[in-house]
Amino acid sequence: MVKGLSNSKQLVALTIAGFDPSSGAGVTADLKVFAAHGIYGLAAVTALTVQSTQGVRRVEPISPEILRQTLDCLAEDVEISGIKVGMLANDRVVDVVSGFLAESGIPAGRMVLDPIISSTSGRKLLLDEGLNRMKTALLPLVGWITPNVDELAILTETPVPGREDVPEAAARLAATYPALNIVVSGGHLDAPDDFLRTAGGVTRADGITRWFPGQRIQTTATHGTGCAFSSALLARLLAGDPPSEAVAAAKNYVSEAMKAAKPIGRGRGPLHHLYRLD
Amino acid sequence: MVKGLSNSKQLVALTIAGFDPSSGAGVTADLKVFAAHGIYGLAAVTALTVQSTQGVRRVEPISPEILRQTLDCLAEDVEISGIKVGMLANDRVVDVVSGFLAESGIPAGRMVLDPIISSTSGRKLLLDEGLNRMKTALLPLVGWITPNVDELAILTETPVPGREDVPEAAARLAATYPALNIVVSGGHLDAPDDFLRTAGGVTRADGITRWFPGQRIQTTATHGTGCAFSSALLARLLAGDPPSEAVAAAKNYVSEAMKAAKPIGRGRGPLHHLYRLD
Repeated sequence: MVKGLSNSKQLVALTIAGFDPSSGAGVTADLKVFAAHGIYGLAAVTALTVQSTQGVRRVEPISPEILRQTLDCLAEDVEISGIKVGMLANDRVVDVVSGFLAESGIPAGRMVLDPIISSTSGRKLLLDEGLNRMKTALLPLVGWITPNVDELAILTETPVPGREDVPEAAARLAATYPALNIVVSGGHLDAPDDFLRTAGGVTRADGITRWFPGQRIQTTATHGTGCAFSSALLARLLAGDPPSEAVAAAKNYVSEAMKAAKPIGRGRGPLHHLYRLD
Repeated sequence: MVKGLSNSKQLVALTIAGFDPSSGAGVTADLKVFAAHGIYGLAAVTALTVQSTQGVRRVEPISPEILRQTLDCLAEDVEISGIKVGMLANDRVVDVVSGFLAESGIPAGRMVLDPIISSTSGRKLLLDEGLNRMKTALLPLVGWITPNVDELAILTETPVPGREDVPEAAARLAATYPALNIVVSGGHLDAPDDFLRTAGGVTRADGITRWFPGQRIQTTATHGTGCAFSSALLARLLAGDPPSEAVAAAKNYVSEAMKAAKPIGRGRGPLHHLYRLD
Protein backbone atom coordinates (compact mmCIF):
# COMPACT_ATOMS: atom_id res chain seq x y z
CA MET A 1 0.00 0.00 0.00
CA VAL A 2 1.39 3.38 -0.98
CA LYS A 3 1.94 5.48 2.14
CA GLY A 4 -0.93 7.80 2.90
CA LEU A 5 -3.48 5.90 0.83
CA SER A 6 -4.66 3.40 3.41
CA ASN A 7 -7.98 5.02 4.16
CA SER A 8 -8.68 6.72 0.85
CA LYS A 9 -10.66 5.53 -2.14
CA GLN A 10 -9.30 2.60 -4.15
CA LEU A 11 -7.11 4.04 -6.92
CA VAL A 12 -7.33 2.35 -10.30
CA ALA A 13 -4.67 2.46 -13.00
CA LEU A 14 -4.86 1.15 -16.56
CA THR A 15 -1.99 -0.42 -18.46
CA ILE A 16 -2.11 -0.51 -22.25
CA ALA A 17 0.70 -2.80 -23.36
CA GLY A 18 1.74 -6.15 -24.75
CA PHE A 19 1.04 -9.54 -23.24
CA ASP A 20 4.08 -11.55 -22.11
CA PRO A 21 3.19 -15.16 -21.18
CA SER A 22 6.21 -15.35 -18.88
CA SER A 23 4.82 -12.34 -16.93
CA GLY A 24 8.22 -10.72 -16.66
CA ALA A 25 7.04 -7.76 -18.71
CA GLY A 26 3.87 -6.41 -20.30
CA VAL A 27 0.44 -6.02 -18.78
CA THR A 28 0.68 -8.85 -16.27
CA ALA A 29 3.91 -7.46 -14.82
CA ASP A 30 2.34 -3.99 -14.73
CA LEU A 31 -0.67 -5.32 -12.80
CA LYS A 32 1.68 -6.83 -10.22
CA VAL A 33 3.54 -3.52 -9.91
CA PHE A 34 0.28 -1.63 -9.43
CA ALA A 35 -0.81 -4.18 -6.81
CA ALA A 36 2.51 -3.85 -5.02
CA HIS A 37 1.67 -0.15 -4.64
CA GLY A 38 -1.90 -0.73 -3.46
CA ILE A 39 -3.41 0.26 -6.79
CA TYR A 40 -6.00 -1.86 -8.62
CA GLY A 41 -5.04 -2.50 -12.22
CA LEU A 42 -6.99 -2.78 -15.45
CA ALA A 43 -5.30 -3.93 -18.65
CA ALA A 44 -5.81 -3.62 -22.40
CA VAL A 45 -3.62 -5.84 -24.56
CA THR A 46 -2.05 -4.23 -27.64
CA ALA A 47 -0.32 -7.36 -28.89
CA LEU A 48 0.15 -10.95 -27.87
CA THR A 49 3.74 -12.11 -27.80
CA VAL A 50 5.24 -15.57 -27.79
CA GLN A 51 8.19 -15.22 -25.45
CA SER A 52 9.94 -16.66 -22.45
CA THR A 53 12.89 -15.50 -20.37
CA GLN A 54 15.01 -16.33 -23.43
CA GLY A 55 13.56 -13.72 -25.75
CA VAL A 56 10.66 -12.75 -27.99
CA ARG A 57 9.75 -15.28 -30.69
CA ARG A 58 6.64 -13.72 -32.16
CA VAL A 59 4.51 -10.59 -31.93
CA GLU A 60 0.83 -10.63 -32.89
CA PRO A 61 -0.85 -7.20 -32.76
CA ILE A 62 -4.48 -7.07 -31.63
CA SER A 63 -7.07 -5.69 -34.02
CA PRO A 64 -7.55 -1.95 -33.46
CA GLU A 65 -11.29 -2.52 -33.19
CA ILE A 66 -11.03 -4.93 -30.24
CA LEU A 67 -8.53 -2.68 -28.51
CA ARG A 68 -10.82 0.34 -28.83
CA GLN A 69 -13.82 -1.65 -27.61
CA THR A 70 -11.80 -2.85 -24.64
CA LEU A 71 -10.68 0.66 -23.69
CA ASP A 72 -14.19 2.07 -24.02
CA CYS A 73 -15.71 -0.82 -22.07
CA LEU A 74 -13.31 -0.24 -19.16
CA ALA A 75 -13.63 3.54 -19.16
CA GLU A 76 -17.44 3.35 -19.10
CA ASP A 77 -17.36 1.10 -16.06
CA VAL A 78 -14.48 2.20 -13.85
CA GLU A 79 -13.03 5.55 -12.84
CA ILE A 80 -9.44 5.41 -14.08
CA SER A 81 -6.91 7.58 -12.24
CA GLY A 82 -3.88 7.09 -14.48
CA ILE A 83 -2.58 5.26 -17.53
CA LYS A 84 0.68 3.55 -18.38
CA VAL A 85 1.34 2.88 -22.06
CA GLY A 86 3.88 0.27 -23.09
CA MET A 87 4.42 -1.72 -26.26
CA LEU A 88 2.27 -0.53 -29.16
CA ALA A 89 3.35 -2.78 -32.05
CA ASN A 90 2.17 -0.70 -35.01
CA ASP A 91 0.68 2.57 -36.23
CA ARG A 92 -2.93 1.43 -36.03
CA VAL A 93 -2.54 0.56 -32.37
CA VAL A 94 -0.80 3.90 -31.74
CA ASP A 95 -3.73 5.71 -33.33
CA VAL A 96 -6.32 3.88 -31.22
CA VAL A 97 -4.39 4.58 -28.03
CA SER A 98 -3.81 8.23 -28.94
CA GLY A 99 -7.50 8.69 -29.67
CA PHE A 100 -8.47 7.10 -26.36
CA LEU A 101 -5.99 9.13 -24.31
CA ALA A 102 -7.10 12.38 -25.97
CA GLU A 103 -10.74 11.69 -25.03
CA SER A 104 -10.05 10.20 -21.59
CA GLY A 105 -10.10 13.42 -19.60
CA ILE A 106 -7.16 12.15 -17.54
CA PRO A 107 -4.50 14.83 -16.89
CA ALA A 108 -1.30 14.39 -18.93
CA GLY A 109 0.70 14.22 -15.69
CA ARG A 110 -1.02 10.94 -14.91
CA MET A 111 -0.10 9.30 -18.20
CA VAL A 112 3.28 7.60 -18.50
CA LEU A 113 4.63 6.31 -21.82
CA ASP A 114 7.33 3.66 -21.90
CA PRO A 115 8.37 4.10 -25.56
CA ILE A 116 9.19 0.49 -26.35
CA ILE A 117 10.75 0.15 -29.79
CA SER A 118 12.81 -3.05 -29.72
CA SER A 119 13.24 -6.03 -27.41
CA THR A 120 16.57 -6.59 -25.67
CA SER A 121 17.02 -9.53 -28.00
CA GLY A 122 16.79 -7.08 -30.92
CA ARG A 123 13.31 -7.76 -32.25
CA LYS A 124 11.36 -4.71 -33.42
CA LEU A 125 8.34 -4.18 -31.17
CA LEU A 126 7.15 -1.01 -32.92
CA LEU A 127 7.19 -0.83 -36.71
CA ASP A 128 8.56 2.30 -38.41
CA GLU A 129 5.23 3.93 -39.21
CA GLY A 130 4.20 3.23 -35.63
CA LEU A 131 7.25 5.13 -34.42
CA ASN A 132 6.29 8.11 -36.57
CA ARG A 133 2.74 8.06 -35.21
CA MET A 134 4.04 7.76 -31.66
CA LYS A 135 6.08 10.92 -32.16
CA THR A 136 3.37 12.96 -33.86
CA ALA A 137 0.19 11.74 -32.13
CA LEU A 138 1.12 10.24 -28.76
CA LEU A 139 4.06 12.20 -27.33
CA PRO A 140 2.13 15.49 -27.31
CA LEU A 141 -0.57 13.84 -25.14
CA VAL A 142 1.33 12.21 -22.28
CA GLY A 143 3.02 13.98 -19.39
CA TRP A 144 5.78 11.46 -18.79
CA ILE A 145 8.10 9.39 -20.97
CA THR A 146 10.68 6.83 -19.78
CA PRO A 147 13.06 6.01 -22.65
CA ASN A 148 16.24 4.05 -22.20
CA VAL A 149 19.34 5.44 -23.90
CA ASP A 150 18.70 3.57 -27.16
CA GLU A 151 15.09 4.78 -27.32
CA LEU A 152 16.21 8.34 -26.55
CA ALA A 153 18.63 8.15 -29.49
CA ILE A 154 15.88 6.94 -31.83
CA LEU A 155 13.34 9.51 -30.63
CA THR A 156 15.81 12.39 -31.06
CA GLU A 157 17.45 10.92 -34.18
CA THR A 158 20.83 11.55 -32.54
CA PRO A 159 23.37 9.07 -31.21
CA VAL A 160 23.63 8.95 -27.40
CA PRO A 161 26.88 7.03 -26.96
CA GLY A 162 27.44 7.64 -23.25
CA ARG A 163 26.25 9.07 -19.99
CA GLU A 164 27.58 12.55 -20.76
CA ASP A 165 25.40 12.77 -23.90
CA VAL A 166 22.13 12.08 -22.08
CA PRO A 167 21.30 15.61 -20.79
CA GLU A 168 21.72 17.19 -24.23
CA ALA A 169 19.62 14.53 -25.92
CA ALA A 170 16.91 14.95 -23.28
CA ALA A 171 17.02 18.71 -23.86
CA ARG A 172 16.54 18.08 -27.56
CA LEU A 173 13.48 15.92 -26.88
CA ALA A 174 12.16 18.59 -24.49
CA ALA A 175 12.56 21.25 -27.18
CA THR A 176 10.09 19.36 -29.36
CA TYR A 177 7.77 18.34 -26.51
CA PRO A 178 8.01 21.06 -23.84
CA ALA A 179 5.19 19.59 -21.70
CA LEU A 180 6.95 16.26 -21.30
CA ASN A 181 8.66 15.05 -18.12
CA ILE A 182 11.53 12.85 -19.28
CA VAL A 183 13.20 10.06 -17.34
CA VAL A 184 16.08 8.41 -19.19
CA SER A 185 16.84 5.03 -17.70
CA GLY A 186 20.52 4.21 -17.76
CA GLY A 187 20.31 0.48 -17.19
CA HIS A 188 22.36 -0.05 -20.35
CA LEU A 189 25.07 2.46 -19.32
CA ASP A 190 28.25 1.52 -17.46
CA ALA A 191 26.81 3.16 -14.37
CA PRO A 192 23.05 2.44 -14.29
CA ASP A 193 22.09 5.99 -13.38
CA ASP A 194 18.79 7.58 -14.41
CA PHE A 195 18.35 11.15 -15.59
CA LEU A 196 15.26 13.28 -14.98
CA ARG A 197 14.34 16.41 -16.88
CA THR A 198 11.00 17.80 -15.76
CA ALA A 199 8.59 19.63 -18.06
CA GLY A 200 9.75 23.14 -18.76
CA GLY A 201 13.23 22.04 -17.79
CA VAL A 202 15.76 24.63 -16.68
CA THR A 203 13.79 27.50 -18.16
CA ARG A 204 11.14 27.28 -15.42
CA ALA A 205 11.71 27.93 -11.76
CA ASP A 206 10.37 24.52 -10.77
CA GLY A 207 11.90 22.74 -13.72
CA ILE A 208 14.78 20.51 -12.77
CA THR A 209 17.38 18.22 -14.22
CA ARG A 210 18.83 15.61 -11.94
CA TRP A 211 20.81 12.38 -11.97
CA PHE A 212 19.72 9.46 -9.82
CA PRO A 213 22.66 7.19 -9.09
CA GLY A 214 21.95 3.49 -9.60
CA GLN A 215 23.60 0.37 -8.34
CA ARG A 216 24.57 -2.51 -10.59
CA ILE A 217 22.81 -5.59 -9.21
CA GLN A 218 24.33 -8.98 -9.91
CA THR A 219 21.31 -10.92 -11.15
CA THR A 220 19.83 -12.50 -14.26
CA ALA A 221 16.43 -11.09 -13.20
CA THR A 222 16.46 -8.16 -15.62
CA HIS A 223 13.46 -9.03 -17.80
CA GLY A 224 11.00 -6.14 -17.85
CA THR A 225 12.87 -3.68 -15.65
CA GLY A 226 11.69 -0.85 -17.91
CA CYS A 227 8.07 -2.00 -17.69
CA ALA A 228 8.31 -2.19 -13.90
CA PHE A 229 9.94 1.23 -13.60
CA SER A 230 7.34 3.04 -15.68
CA SER A 231 4.43 1.36 -13.84
CA ALA A 232 5.97 2.09 -10.45
CA LEU A 233 6.53 5.69 -11.52
CA LEU A 234 2.85 6.03 -12.43
CA ALA A 235 1.87 4.47 -9.10
CA ARG A 236 4.00 6.97 -7.18
CA LEU A 237 2.66 9.90 -9.21
CA LEU A 238 -0.91 8.75 -8.48
CA ALA A 239 0.01 8.64 -4.79
CA GLY A 240 0.91 12.32 -5.05
CA ASP A 241 4.70 12.17 -5.09
CA PRO A 242 6.48 15.16 -6.67
CA PRO A 243 8.60 14.27 -9.75
CA SER A 244 11.95 13.67 -8.05
CA GLU A 245 10.47 11.65 -5.21
CA ALA A 246 8.41 9.57 -7.65
CA VAL A 247 11.46 8.73 -9.77
CA ALA A 248 13.59 7.89 -6.74
CA ALA A 249 10.89 5.68 -5.24
CA ALA A 250 10.21 3.87 -8.52
CA LYS A 251 13.92 3.26 -9.04
CA ASN A 252 14.23 1.91 -5.52
CA TYR A 253 11.22 -0.37 -6.04
CA VAL A 254 12.78 -1.89 -9.16
CA SER A 255 16.08 -2.47 -7.34
CA GLU A 256 14.33 -4.20 -4.46
CA ALA A 257 12.26 -6.35 -6.83
CA MET A 258 15.44 -7.36 -8.69
CA LYS A 259 17.25 -8.24 -5.48
CA ALA A 260 14.29 -10.32 -4.25
CA ALA A 261 13.94 -12.29 -7.50
CA LYS A 262 14.32 -16.06 -7.48
CA PRO A 263 15.68 -17.88 -10.54
CA ILE A 264 12.96 -18.64 -13.10
CA GLY A 265 13.69 -19.84 -16.63
CA ARG A 266 16.96 -20.19 -18.46
CA GLY A 267 17.34 -16.61 -19.66
CA ARG A 268 16.69 -13.17 -18.22
CA GLY A 269 14.19 -13.93 -15.50
CA PRO A 270 11.39 -11.81 -14.02
CA LEU A 271 11.69 -9.47 -11.06
CA HIS A 272 9.84 -10.41 -7.89
CA HIS A 273 7.28 -7.64 -8.27
CA LEU A 274 5.38 -8.67 -5.17
CA TYR A 275 8.36 -9.14 -2.86
CA ARG A 276 6.39 -7.58 -0.01
CA LEU A 277 4.34 -10.79 0.17
CA ASP A 278 7.37 -12.80 1.33
CA MET B 1 3.78 -17.54 0.82
CA VAL B 2 2.22 -20.95 1.32
CA LYS B 3 3.24 -22.32 4.71
CA GLY B 4 6.23 -24.60 4.52
CA LEU B 5 7.48 -23.32 1.18
CA SER B 6 9.60 -20.42 2.37
CA ASN B 7 12.97 -22.07 1.85
CA SER B 8 12.18 -24.44 -0.98
CA LYS B 9 12.54 -23.94 -4.72
CA GLN B 10 10.28 -21.39 -6.41
CA LEU B 11 7.15 -23.23 -7.57
CA VAL B 12 5.76 -22.22 -10.95
CA ALA B 13 2.17 -22.72 -12.10
CA LEU B 14 0.71 -22.12 -15.54
CA THR B 15 -2.78 -20.81 -16.21
CA ILE B 16 -4.37 -21.43 -19.60
CA ALA B 17 -7.49 -19.28 -19.75
CA GLY B 18 -9.20 -16.21 -21.13
CA PHE B 19 -8.04 -12.62 -20.76
CA ASP B 20 -10.35 -10.30 -18.80
CA PRO B 21 -9.28 -6.63 -19.07
CA SER B 22 -10.96 -5.88 -15.74
CA SER B 23 -8.73 -8.51 -14.08
CA GLY B 24 -11.57 -9.90 -12.04
CA ALA B 25 -11.29 -13.25 -13.79
CA GLY B 26 -9.12 -15.03 -16.34
CA VAL B 27 -5.35 -15.27 -16.47
CA THR B 28 -4.57 -12.01 -14.70
CA ALA B 29 -6.75 -12.96 -11.74
CA ASP B 30 -5.14 -16.41 -11.70
CA LEU B 31 -1.66 -14.88 -11.61
CA LYS B 32 -2.67 -12.80 -8.60
CA VAL B 33 -4.06 -15.90 -6.86
CA PHE B 34 -0.84 -17.82 -7.52
CA ALA B 35 1.20 -14.87 -6.22
CA ALA B 36 -0.96 -14.70 -3.09
CA HIS B 37 0.13 -18.30 -2.43
CA GLY B 38 3.82 -17.68 -3.11
CA ILE B 39 3.73 -19.34 -6.52
CA TYR B 40 5.13 -17.72 -9.67
CA GLY B 41 2.62 -17.73 -12.52
CA LEU B 42 2.91 -18.14 -16.28
CA ALA B 43 -0.07 -17.54 -18.54
CA ALA B 44 -1.28 -18.58 -21.98
CA VAL B 45 -4.30 -16.71 -23.30
CA THR B 46 -7.00 -18.80 -25.00
CA ALA B 47 -9.25 -15.89 -25.90
CA LEU B 48 -9.39 -12.16 -25.48
CA THR B 49 -12.60 -10.84 -24.04
CA VAL B 50 -14.09 -7.38 -24.02
CA GLN B 51 -15.65 -7.14 -20.58
CA SER B 52 -15.96 -5.09 -17.45
CA THR B 53 -17.60 -5.69 -14.09
CA GLN B 54 -20.90 -5.37 -15.98
CA GLY B 55 -20.50 -8.44 -18.15
CA VAL B 56 -18.89 -9.95 -21.23
CA ARG B 57 -19.41 -8.02 -24.48
CA ARG B 58 -17.23 -9.96 -26.86
CA VAL B 59 -15.07 -13.08 -27.03
CA GLU B 60 -12.22 -13.39 -29.52
CA PRO B 61 -10.50 -16.81 -29.49
CA ILE B 62 -6.74 -16.89 -30.11
CA SER B 63 -5.44 -18.81 -33.10
CA PRO B 64 -4.57 -22.39 -32.10
CA GLU B 65 -1.14 -21.95 -33.65
CA ILE B 66 -0.16 -19.02 -31.41
CA LEU B 67 -1.53 -20.79 -28.36
CA ARG B 68 0.50 -23.92 -29.07
CA GLN B 69 3.65 -21.86 -29.73
CA THR B 70 3.11 -20.03 -26.46
CA LEU B 71 2.71 -23.24 -24.46
CA ASP B 72 5.76 -24.84 -26.05
CA CYS B 73 7.85 -21.71 -25.57
CA LEU B 74 7.03 -21.62 -21.85
CA ALA B 75 7.49 -25.36 -21.28
CA GLU B 76 10.92 -25.33 -22.96
CA ASP B 77 12.11 -22.53 -20.70
CA VAL B 78 10.56 -23.06 -17.27
CA GLU B 79 9.87 -26.10 -15.10
CA ILE B 80 6.10 -26.04 -14.62
CA SER B 81 4.74 -27.70 -11.47
CA GLY B 82 1.02 -27.51 -12.18
CA ILE B 83 -1.58 -26.22 -14.59
CA LYS B 84 -4.96 -24.56 -14.21
CA VAL B 85 -7.22 -24.58 -17.26
CA GLY B 86 -10.07 -22.09 -17.53
CA MET B 87 -12.06 -20.71 -20.44
CA LEU B 88 -11.38 -22.53 -23.70
CA ALA B 89 -13.73 -20.82 -26.17
CA ASN B 90 -13.91 -23.48 -28.89
CA ASP B 91 -12.98 -26.99 -30.01
CA ARG B 92 -9.71 -25.99 -31.64
CA VAL B 93 -8.46 -24.43 -28.45
CA VAL B 94 -9.58 -27.51 -26.48
CA ASP B 95 -7.59 -29.71 -28.84
CA VAL B 96 -4.41 -27.63 -28.49
CA VAL B 97 -4.69 -27.63 -24.71
CA SER B 98 -5.45 -31.37 -24.56
CA GLY B 99 -2.44 -32.10 -26.75
CA PHE B 100 -0.19 -29.97 -24.60
CA LEU B 101 -1.39 -31.47 -21.31
CA ALA B 102 -0.98 -35.01 -22.65
CA GLU B 103 2.66 -34.32 -23.57
CA SER B 104 3.51 -32.18 -20.56
CA GLY B 105 4.59 -34.97 -18.23
CA ILE B 106 2.82 -33.20 -15.36
CA PRO B 107 0.86 -35.59 -13.09
CA ALA B 108 -2.93 -35.38 -13.52
CA GLY B 109 -3.28 -34.53 -9.83
CA ARG B 110 -1.55 -31.21 -10.54
CA MET B 111 -3.92 -30.20 -13.33
CA VAL B 112 -7.16 -28.43 -12.40
CA LEU B 113 -9.90 -27.74 -14.94
CA ASP B 114 -12.47 -25.03 -14.30
CA PRO B 115 -15.01 -26.12 -16.94
CA ILE B 116 -16.27 -22.69 -17.96
CA ILE B 117 -19.21 -22.94 -20.33
CA SER B 118 -21.16 -19.69 -19.95
CA SER B 119 -20.64 -16.32 -18.32
CA THR B 120 -22.85 -15.30 -15.41
CA SER B 121 -24.44 -12.83 -17.80
CA GLY B 122 -25.42 -15.80 -19.99
CA ARG B 123 -22.95 -15.54 -22.85
CA LYS B 124 -21.59 -18.84 -24.18
CA LEU B 125 -17.86 -19.07 -23.45
CA LEU B 126 -17.44 -22.56 -24.92
CA LEU B 127 -19.16 -23.45 -28.17
CA ASP B 128 -20.99 -26.78 -28.44
CA GLU B 129 -18.31 -28.68 -30.32
CA GLY B 130 -15.82 -27.36 -27.79
CA LEU B 131 -17.91 -28.87 -25.00
CA ASN B 132 -17.88 -32.24 -26.73
CA ARG B 133 -14.11 -32.10 -27.16
CA MET B 134 -13.70 -31.07 -23.53
CA LYS B 135 -15.61 -34.16 -22.46
CA THR B 136 -13.83 -36.60 -24.76
CA ALA B 137 -10.28 -35.23 -24.89
CA LEU B 138 -9.68 -33.08 -21.81
CA LEU B 139 -11.59 -34.59 -18.88
CA PRO B 140 -9.69 -37.91 -19.10
CA LEU B 141 -6.39 -35.99 -18.72
CA VAL B 142 -6.89 -33.77 -15.69
CA GLY B 143 -7.02 -34.89 -12.07
CA TRP B 144 -9.34 -32.17 -10.81
CA ILE B 145 -12.49 -30.46 -12.06
CA THR B 146 -14.37 -27.60 -10.37
CA PRO B 147 -17.82 -27.24 -11.97
CA ASN B 148 -20.55 -25.09 -10.51
CA VAL B 149 -24.00 -26.62 -10.35
CA ASP B 150 -24.98 -25.44 -13.83
CA GLU B 151 -21.79 -26.82 -15.36
CA LEU B 152 -22.28 -30.12 -13.53
CA ALA B 153 -25.75 -30.37 -15.04
CA ILE B 154 -24.41 -29.76 -18.54
CA LEU B 155 -21.48 -32.16 -18.14
CA THR B 156 -23.75 -34.95 -16.87
CA GLU B 157 -26.68 -34.03 -19.15
CA THR B 158 -28.93 -34.20 -16.08
CA PRO B 159 -30.73 -31.40 -14.26
CA VAL B 160 -29.25 -30.53 -10.83
CA PRO B 161 -32.04 -28.41 -9.38
CA GLY B 162 -30.84 -28.27 -5.77
CA ARG B 163 -28.26 -29.13 -3.16
CA GLU B 164 -29.65 -32.61 -2.57
CA ASP B 165 -29.10 -33.53 -6.24
CA VAL B 166 -25.38 -32.67 -6.24
CA PRO B 167 -23.92 -35.92 -4.82
CA GLU B 168 -25.75 -38.10 -7.34
CA ALA B 169 -24.76 -35.91 -10.26
CA ALA B 170 -21.13 -35.94 -9.08
CA ALA B 171 -21.32 -39.73 -8.82
CA ARG B 172 -22.58 -39.85 -12.39
CA LEU B 173 -19.64 -37.73 -13.56
CA ALA B 174 -17.27 -39.96 -11.56
CA ALA B 175 -18.70 -43.07 -13.23
CA THR B 176 -17.56 -41.72 -16.60
CA TYR B 177 -14.26 -40.30 -15.33
CA PRO B 178 -13.15 -42.44 -12.38
CA ALA B 179 -9.73 -40.72 -12.05
CA LEU B 180 -11.29 -37.30 -11.55
CA ASN B 181 -11.45 -35.43 -8.25
CA ILE B 182 -14.64 -33.37 -8.40
CA VAL B 183 -15.39 -30.19 -6.48
CA VAL B 184 -18.86 -28.79 -7.13
CA SER B 185 -19.03 -25.15 -6.12
CA GLY B 186 -22.36 -24.19 -4.70
CA GLY B 187 -22.08 -20.43 -5.02
CA HIS B 188 -25.36 -20.42 -6.96
CA LEU B 189 -27.20 -22.55 -4.38
CA ASP B 190 -29.25 -21.13 -1.50
CA ALA B 191 -26.50 -22.22 0.88
CA PRO B 192 -23.15 -21.69 -0.88
CA ASP B 193 -21.74 -25.05 0.19
CA ASP B 194 -19.17 -26.95 -1.89
CA PHE B 195 -19.16 -30.69 -2.44
CA LEU B 196 -16.04 -32.81 -2.89
CA ARG B 197 -15.92 -36.28 -4.34
CA THR B 198 -12.36 -37.58 -4.61
CA ALA B 199 -11.18 -39.91 -7.35
CA GLY B 200 -12.39 -43.45 -6.82
CA GLY B 201 -15.08 -42.04 -4.58
CA VAL B 202 -16.67 -44.28 -1.99
CA THR B 203 -15.45 -47.45 -3.69
CA ARG B 204 -11.84 -46.81 -2.55
CA ALA B 205 -10.65 -46.74 1.04
CA ASP B 206 -9.20 -43.25 0.65
CA GLY B 207 -12.02 -41.99 -1.54
CA ILE B 208 -14.28 -39.52 0.20
CA THR B 209 -17.36 -37.41 -0.34
CA ARG B 210 -17.75 -34.34 1.81
CA TRP B 211 -19.68 -31.11 2.04
CA PHE B 212 -17.88 -27.89 2.88
CA PRO B 213 -20.29 -25.37 4.40
CA GLY B 214 -20.03 -21.90 2.93
CA GLN B 215 -21.08 -18.51 4.19
CA ARG B 216 -23.08 -16.06 2.12
CA ILE B 217 -21.03 -12.85 1.98
CA GLN B 218 -22.85 -9.58 1.41
CA THR B 219 -20.80 -8.05 -1.40
CA THR B 220 -20.94 -7.17 -5.07
CA ALA B 221 -17.37 -8.51 -5.42
CA THR B 222 -18.36 -11.82 -6.97
CA HIS B 223 -16.68 -11.54 -10.37
CA GLY B 224 -14.38 -14.50 -10.97
CA THR B 225 -14.96 -16.40 -7.74
CA GLY B 226 -14.79 -19.67 -9.71
CA CYS B 227 -11.50 -18.67 -11.35
CA ALA B 228 -10.03 -17.74 -7.97
CA PHE B 229 -11.20 -20.97 -6.34
CA SER B 230 -9.73 -23.27 -8.98
CA SER B 231 -6.38 -21.41 -8.97
CA ALA B 232 -6.21 -21.40 -5.21
CA LEU B 233 -7.04 -25.11 -5.20
CA LEU B 234 -4.13 -25.77 -7.56
CA ALA B 235 -1.84 -23.67 -5.39
CA ARG B 236 -2.76 -25.66 -2.29
CA LEU B 237 -2.34 -28.99 -4.10
CA LEU B 238 1.12 -27.88 -5.27
CA ALA B 239 1.94 -27.02 -1.67
CA GLY B 240 1.19 -30.63 -0.79
CA ASP B 241 -2.23 -30.32 0.84
CA PRO B 242 -4.39 -33.48 0.83
CA PRO B 243 -7.70 -33.09 -1.10
CA SER B 244 -9.97 -32.03 1.77
CA GLU B 245 -7.46 -29.57 3.21
CA ALA B 246 -6.81 -28.09 -0.23
CA VAL B 247 -10.52 -27.53 -0.89
CA ALA B 248 -11.10 -26.04 2.55
CA ALA B 249 -8.12 -23.72 2.24
CA ALA B 250 -9.06 -22.58 -1.28
CA LYS B 251 -12.63 -21.92 -0.18
CA ASN B 252 -11.39 -19.92 2.79
CA TYR B 253 -9.04 -17.91 0.56
CA VAL B 254 -11.90 -16.94 -1.77
CA SER B 255 -14.06 -15.88 1.18
CA GLU B 256 -11.28 -13.71 2.59
CA ALA B 257 -10.60 -12.14 -0.81
CA MET B 258 -14.31 -11.36 -1.20
CA LYS B 259 -14.52 -9.81 2.25
CA ALA B 260 -11.42 -7.67 1.61
CA ALA B 261 -12.64 -6.37 -1.76
CA LYS B 262 -13.14 -2.65 -2.28
CA PRO B 263 -15.80 -1.39 -4.69
CA ILE B 264 -14.57 -1.24 -8.30
CA GLY B 265 -16.84 -0.71 -11.28
CA ARG B 266 -20.60 -0.55 -11.48
CA GLY B 267 -21.32 -4.27 -11.69
CA ARG B 268 -19.94 -7.41 -10.08
CA GLY B 269 -16.51 -6.26 -8.97
CA PRO B 270 -13.27 -8.19 -8.51
CA LEU B 271 -12.12 -9.91 -5.34
CA HIS B 272 -9.09 -8.48 -3.58
CA HIS B 273 -6.84 -11.39 -4.54
CA LEU B 274 -3.79 -9.87 -2.86
CA TYR B 275 -5.45 -8.84 0.39
CA ARG B 276 -2.36 -9.92 2.31
CA LEU B 277 -0.58 -6.82 0.93
CA ASP B 278 -2.87 -4.50 2.92
